[in-house]
Amino acid sequence: MKKELRDTSIVLVGAGNLATNLAKALRKAGFAIAQVYSRTLQSASALAEVVDAEYTTDIHQLKRDADWYIVSLKDSVFVELIGDICQDKKQDALFVHTAGSVPMSIWQGYANYYGVFYPLQTFSKKREVDFKEIPFFIEASTPANCEWLKEVAQTMSDKVYEATSEQRKSLHLAAVFTCNFTNHMYALAADLLEKYDLPFEAMLPLIDETARKVHELAPREAQTGPAIRYDEEVIDKHLQMLEHDEQMRDLYERLSRSIHLRSKE
Amino acid sequence: MKKELRDTSIVLVGAGNLATNLAKALRKAGFAIAQVYSRTLQSASALAEVVDAEYTTDIHQLKRDADWYIVSLKDSVFVELIGDICQDKKQDALFVHTAGSVPMSIWQGYANYYGVFYPLQTFSKKREVDFKEIPFFIEASTPANCEWLKEVAQTMSDKVYEATSEQRKSLHLAAVFTCNFTNHMYALAADLLEKYDLPFEAMLPLIDETARKVHELAPREAQTGPAIRYDEEVIDKHLQMLEHDEQMRDLYERLSRSIHLRSKE
Repeated sequence: MKKELRDTSIVLVGAGNLATNLAKALRKAGFAIAQVYSRTLQSASALAEVVDAEYTTDIHQLKRDADWYIVSLKDSVFVELIGDICQDKKQDALFVHTAGSVPMSIWQGYANYYGVFYPLQTFSKKREVDFKEIPFFIEASTPANCEWLKEVAQTMSDKVYEATSEQRKSLHLAAVFTCNFTNHMYALAADLLEKYDLPFEAMLPLIDETARKVHELAPREAQTGPAIRYDEEVIDKHLQMLEHDEQMRDLYERLSRSIHLRSKE
Repeated sequence: MKKELRDTSIVLVGAGNLATNLAKALRKAGFAIAQVYSRTLQSASALAEVVDAEYTTDIHQLKRDADWYIVSLKDSVFVELIGDICQDKKQDALFVHTAGSVPMSIWQGYANYYGVFYPLQTFSKKREVDFKEIPFFIEASTPANCEWLKEVAQTMSDKVYEATSEQRKSLHLAAVFTCNFTNHMYALAADLLEKYDLPFEAMLPLIDETARKVHELAPREAQTGPAIRYDEEVIDKHLQMLEHDEQMRDLYERLSRSIHLRSKE
């Protein structure tokens, strides 16, 4: 691709949380999205409208002449569609996916030029995020493609790195703990507070400080609460309060044990 | 206590994370701490020096003539020392504790005037926090004491509320999930990244956004990741990566199941 960066013709395969936020950020950075694909008409048309693109719900109707295909699908769907995505497309086009846990090698045999364009962040359609701070992890089949992808990423973010498939997989696993499981802790707390008729807002200063703290202290050093000081009186009271929710009680017990055990390592 | 607010003579029983941060905040708000007690000489003297107070490691040497006794001890130690703390102290002094899970009624029979002064936050000695945003939950045996404690709290924080012992216990349990268990998720991620030779800093934008998100969306709405979209391919890969850490693998599996199950409620 010898074109000017922003003259690239882009097809976006997928219209989920990540695809939606990435498309908007690319648009904002001056790129044009030519076409959006999604299985559902609603997702395809909604995103296409926002980024001023064409759309299709038929994978066989993907434009054949684009320069850059960005695939952002659930892993199992990606595996199923990869043949259709690459078939009959321009041989010098660049194919990338945005998945943390899918190795770059998945493209082998399907495309000549390929790579990975992975923004490490939690995306929801309902919330716009600032891309400046989002780390992008780039991998590509040729050094030139790698440089090109880094250049594109740099139009959106100040934090662009190269990473191997192996490193990206580890980052993704760590991200499930720091983000998805963390958010689930918030959700369990919200359920509890709702049950007791208390507002979730009361937790926000605590949530913010817990996040801010690990900018300064290592998480192990930042740990507080009954489990780390092994305050059995408090732990027992809490387990009693959870006795009507077997699953939550079980999580409380295992997480407390895990905190306590790791503190002694 | 009819004195001017800041003429109150204060004894602080405890010199842990919460006591240390609270003492500093009171000092900053113009209060004088007369004496600090801690079991260990190091903690007692370190905090006493910072807040310009006397100190003791002998519970029987607590000043008898203070106006306000603030007890901030591990629950089991508190129960053990409450008799010594209150014995022979002025009958019109106010006794409060700062614990989430200890009911106010613990003071009954020990003190005439008593209450609870509970700042809902995570405190570490190594990190100074801004008290302005910290919610204080107040409870007292008389309306006058309650008003007085609220006034004191308002010199430090903009968010001062009354709460019953029952409500405080629920807030504390929810806080264990939102803060202590969340920080443990960060710690598990840090362990993983260290093993893979990747910097924990890469997680910080994700941690921040995960926290910011729930200011706007309910945690259930904010949930992303393989468990919520039930992406078994990713989940299986992650479980394989954790096969050498039985405990972490078990947590991953249970937390994913919990996310998935609750999404269907």
